[in-house]
Amino acid sequence: MNYDQIFDQAIDRLHEEGRYRVFIDILRNKGAYPNARCFHGHNGPKPITVWCSNDYLCMGQHDKVIGAMEAALHDVGAGSGGTRNIGGNTHLHVQLENELADLHGKETALLFTSGYVSNDATLSTLARLLPGCAIFSDELNHASMIAGIRNSGCEKRVFRHNDVAHLEELLAAEDADTPKLIAFESVYSMEGDVAPIHAICDLAEKYNALTYIDEVHAVGMYGARGGGISERDNAAHRIDIIEGTLGKAFGVMGGYIASSSKVVDCIRSYAPGFIFTTSLSPVLVAGVLASVRHLKKSSAERNAQQRAAAQLKLKFAEAGLPVMDSVTHIVPLMVGDPVRAKKISDILLAEYGVYVQPINFPTVPRGTERLRFTPGPGHTTDMMDELTAALVEIWDRLELELAQAA
Amino acid sequence: MNYDQIFDQAIDRLHEEGRYRVFIDILRNKGAYPNARCFHGHNGPKPITVWCSNDYLCMGQHDKVIGAMEAALHDVGAGSGGTRNIGGNTHLHVQLENELADLHGKETALLFTSGYVSNDATLSTLARLLPGCAIFSDELNHASMIAGIRNSGCEKRVFRHNDVAHLEELLAAEDADTPKLIAFESVYSMEGDVAPIHAICDLAEKYNALTYIDEVHAVGMYGARGGGISERDNAAHRIDIIEGTLGKAFGVMGGYIASSSKVVDCIRSYAPGFIFTTSLSPVLVAGVLASVRHLKKSSAERNAQQRAAAQLKLKFAEAGLPVMDSVTHIVPLMVGDPVRAKKISDILLAEYGVYVQPINFPTVPRGTERLRFTPGPGHTTDMMDELTAALVEIWDRLELELAQAA
Repeated sequence: MNYDQIFDQAIDRLHEEGRYRVFIDILRNKGAYPNARCFHGHNGPKPITVWCSNDYLCMGQHDKVIGAMEAALHDVGAGSGGTRNIGGNTHLHVQLENELADLHGKETALLFTSGYVSNDATLSTLARLLPGCAIFSDELNHASMIAGIRNSGCEKRVFRHNDVAHLEELLAAEDADTPKLIAFESVYSMEGDVAPIHAICDLAEKYNALTYIDEVHAVGMYGARGGGISERDNAAHRIDIIEGTLGKAFGVMGGYIASSSKVVDCIRSYAPGFIFTTSLSPVLVAGVLASVRHLKKSSAERNAQQRAAAQLKLKFAEAGLPVMDSVTHIVPLMVGDPVRAKKISDILLAEYGVYVQPINFPTVPRGTERLRFTPGPGHTTDMMDELTAALVEIWDRLELELAQAA
Repeated sequence: MNYDQIFDQAIDRLHEEGRYRVFIDILRNKGAYPNARCFHGHNGPKPITVWCSNDYLCMGQHDKVIGAMEAALHDVGAGSGGTRNIGGNTHLHVQLENELADLHGKETALLFTSGYVSNDATLSTLARLLPGCAIFSDELNHASMIAGIRNSGCEKRVFRHNDVAHLEELLAAEDADTPKLIAFESVYSMEGDVAPIHAICDLAEKYNALTYIDEVHAVGMYGARGGGISERDNAAHRIDIIEGTLGKAFGVMGGYIASSSKVVDCIRSYAPGFIFTTSLSPVLVAGVLASVRHLKKSSAERNAQQRAAAQLKLKFAEAGLPVMDSVTHIVPLMVGDPVRAKKISDILLAEYGVYVQPINFPTVPRGTERLRFTPGPGHTTDMMDELTAALVEIWDRLELELAQAA
């Protein structure tokens, strides 16, 4: 048994497929973001513009967020010092859970160290508590939901992406007495499309299934108070469990679920991924609290983001770039090949000071590799014009096809 | 199918067993820790002394840590804004990984959002990369290691706690060509005992097995530079993968592994729990960097902790309290019943302003419920005397047995 050889082979496979990942080493410039410093392949940092961040609304540099974190740092210190049960349950955690429950109109909420852990811990624990449970899962669900479903060991039925007819077919085929859970996302972050929430809830009622929605790419950004697509579509009351993140539009880090007291009490009490982990740093929690409270009242950031996304999509389309259909703030350009996607990304960074990461397998299916732009309140019209011109130049240089200008 | 009824039953079971968990709502007082404010069952906060924190060395309030976090907050902002691959790889992350690799004398290191995720992601991914792998696991391994092993789907052989003869028996019974991984902890945090690292490494060499050690309750606290028991025992070079936490002695939040470049490259490239999650906030990373660097040079905190632990064990033993054998900084008092453990904890908090959480199943086996004290540099002799007197008074009131004074 030669372990090194096995590890070498595993890495070689990635190189052969052109999807070996190189992490670009940066520091964002607070107060001037999306400007950042890049430490990658240069002597000393070089200024760049970040186009692929999930700090969608620039809340990671908002004065209220920074101020709240600084205050908490000096009031209570750096870390929580323990799990939620053993010394790590701070008053800030309790306040944030109340705030998030209110955001979604649910009885209560529960914090996790990340959105990944929220999904993994909640889905795997729920399915274990419901004897013989079957989970109905959208085929494009995030890796963290897939992990939770697999780790539960329960039956999994995969329905075609956003295909309600297929979902009904699968639900109808199941025994009426089988506990059922439908798991889906509101905004699919690599496509930018949106789930038909009401139609899914209709089926859940008809077939007596629980509903679980991942709103990580929607909370803060949709709905009058930032409650996500389920708020925008007035559907939150029809969903049993809403899962969200604190690391994207809210600008900090962490994840959560909002649900009934009963469900949350069960997850809190039975999920190893919740029980056996040091709780979120109170510094982070304080920042999120300020962020959620601000976005409940202010729509300025949401509106600016939507304007920027519409503007960039239009510019890409006018230039004939292969911008994918998206009804959200996500602006994906299809490339369809991992090597070419990386090449475009490398040229953008080296020659234009533009940072957009190539998205490859396993984040998206093979053959659908893409560049994914996330314009936000900080991206100016000038930045968009420069970006579009750079892409057209690169498309030309690599002899890629441009559509007729729209 | 009545879902609410199933959830109710799950919660009722916890109440019946006396192990329904109540999270005590506190805020630590930075600069005066282990003093804190308790919001539990009172009108307004009440001052308490925390005796159960894993901020073992009070690094969560150290000036260098606080200062570094404040500087990062103002330099780069609150969150990282992305996964390590997509926009969330900051220069601070790179620096901290270098620092941790150096701490353990390994080629490289990899950060995770928590110690739980480090164990779960690394063990499950390693075992999947090694075809037909068998994992040899100490029976008292932490829930996160158990999760990783279960989620890998590989064969699991459980050896009796710290029992090298039993481990050898299991290794010898395995086919020579089977890939093997021995997973164990250095300090077992609920018992306070220590693994025979060299003896385990001897077996790993004899049977060609990889070794994985969880040092979360040792890093920062043992070894001349805080490299853990593997540094203290001069065994780090014999271990393939060292896993640690940034949320206990280092005082902040997060987890990591340190290993060869090959192993880290594999985990970085194949572990969903690493790939698909927003990276640690750069504010946290900056704090940890300061903490690790400080504890590499300063042994004052380690020495103070060891003195405090020795002193408290002696006081408990002299008072006849059932202090468990521990060769580390952990000071557990055996109670052996969940209801009684909670009762003692409740009285301490309500009447004495002492916060120590009862430890019950599933954190420890049923029938071994205990109170677990973690004295550190901030706990004074006066605090220890008051605590000991309070415990003796409660033992007397509840008619529990005290040993003859030692």
